[in-house]
Amino acid sequence: MPRLLHFSLDPASRRIRLALAEYGVTHDATEERPWQAGPDLFAANPAGTVPVFIEDDGSAVCGSEAVSEYLEETRGADQPLIPGDALARAEVRRLVSWFDTKFYAEVSEPVLTEKVIRRFLPRAAGGGAPDMSRIRHGLSLLRGHLDYIAALADARPFLAGPDLSMADLAAAAHLSAIDYLGDIPWADHSGAKSWYQRLKSRPSFRSLLADQLPGMAPAGSYADLDF
Amino acid sequence: MPRLLHFSLDPASRRIRLALAEYGVTHDATEERPWQAGPDLFAANPAGTVPVFIEDDGSAVCGSEAVSEYLEETRGADQPLIPGDALARAEVRRLVSWFDTKFYAEVSEPVLTEKVIRRFLPRAAGGGAPDMSRIRHGLSLLRGHLDYIAALADARPFLAGPDLSMADLAAAAHLSAIDYLGDIPWADHSGAKSWYQRLKSRPSFRSLLADQLPGMAPAGSYADLDF
Repeated sequence: MPRLLHFSLDPASRRIRLALAEYGVTHDATEERPWQAGPDLFAANPAGTVPVFIEDDGSAVCGSEAVSEYLEETRGADQPLIPGDALARAEVRRLVSWFDTKFYAEVSEPVLTEKVIRRFLPRAAGGGAPDMSRIRHGLSLLRGHLDYIAALADARPFLAGPDLSMADLAAAAHLSAIDYLGDIPWADHSGAKSWYQRLKSRPSFRSLLADQLPGMAPAGSYADLDF
Repeated sequence: MPRLLHFSLDPASRRIRLALAEYGVTHDATEERPWQAGPDLFAANPAGTVPVFIEDDGSAVCGSEAVSEYLEETRGADQPLIPGDALARAEVRRLVSWFDTKFYAEVSEPVLTEKVIRRFLPRAAGGGAPDMSRIRHGLSLLRGHLDYIAALADARPFLAGPDLSMADLAAAAHLSAIDYLGDIPWADHSGAKSWYQRLKSRPSFRSLLADQLPGMAPAGSYADLDF
């Protein structure tokens, strides 16, 4: 069976978990902590990052961009997640990059680093109390992204066009990691909320909703489909 | 004629310029300064970033991942730059991500921000004297990347395998931006140097070697093929 090396709250890993479930690829998942990458992770990926997808024969595919395109090429024939013509596919990839680059830099990276990773780091490596100003700034920028999701979901059935795509999975992956912490102001963002409800109700979401980080339980409504 | 919105010393833009030249796509290039993105750039790309590739009919493809895959799908039939089977293509994308993510964070972003972008920013937006410690740290990490390039080029004809690929163009794009500043210790890295000499000699490199940033001439050997 193929293997996935991932970290539960890593948005890039979450997108690939959602994609594997949508494609119907059963796999073994191994949790890694990329900020303390060990020899096994470095052996699979010289960059020491997750996600890494490993085929039965040991061939490793490293990083969310490479894994995403690889799965689409090898498992995406029946239900593509980068669907349509070249321009439609470019729109999917533009939005994936919006979330993996811009949303990540502005929201996921500061919030997850300060609230999650800093708990696990030794003090000498930057562990300790979170920098609240970075969290507040990230969460203030989150609101613009929720408005952007609402605008896209208002104009199209799914974020990148008529069909579910990697763009929806990327957005949902990032939001779900922040939602684990209870930090999404859903009440103020009904457009983004109704799009997220549709995504969260898909069977592909179940494994994410069962996540339990040791010592850090999810927020109350994290796994609730009627949040 | 298609248009490319780019910034001369932006490594992601440089990779797309190299790819366009390798594919033989003639285009008009418009210089943008993404740190002061104006209405034209935001109209083409809501993220306000470069590169953006714009077809004759006005269709815009935004961001280096989307542009790269789009050009391969629409212009790559004769000479692919993401060549081979799915695993070979995954290796190309792993290395593109190595340079666009890891090399960028460790080397290109600090060195280019401190030495180039800070010159153009108003003081209130962070302009002024460079932070020399960030530059020194970036240039110290550059050495490991040069060793990695040498190891790959020693094991294979090109970085990702038997053929020229986006991996070579990504690595060359980042190195060439640092080389514009004269900051690559070529004398200590003969393996990386001989690979770079091969890339730099390709006709696709000519437009990069002619770059002249206003008020900031390139280092002496930047355009010299026998450096």
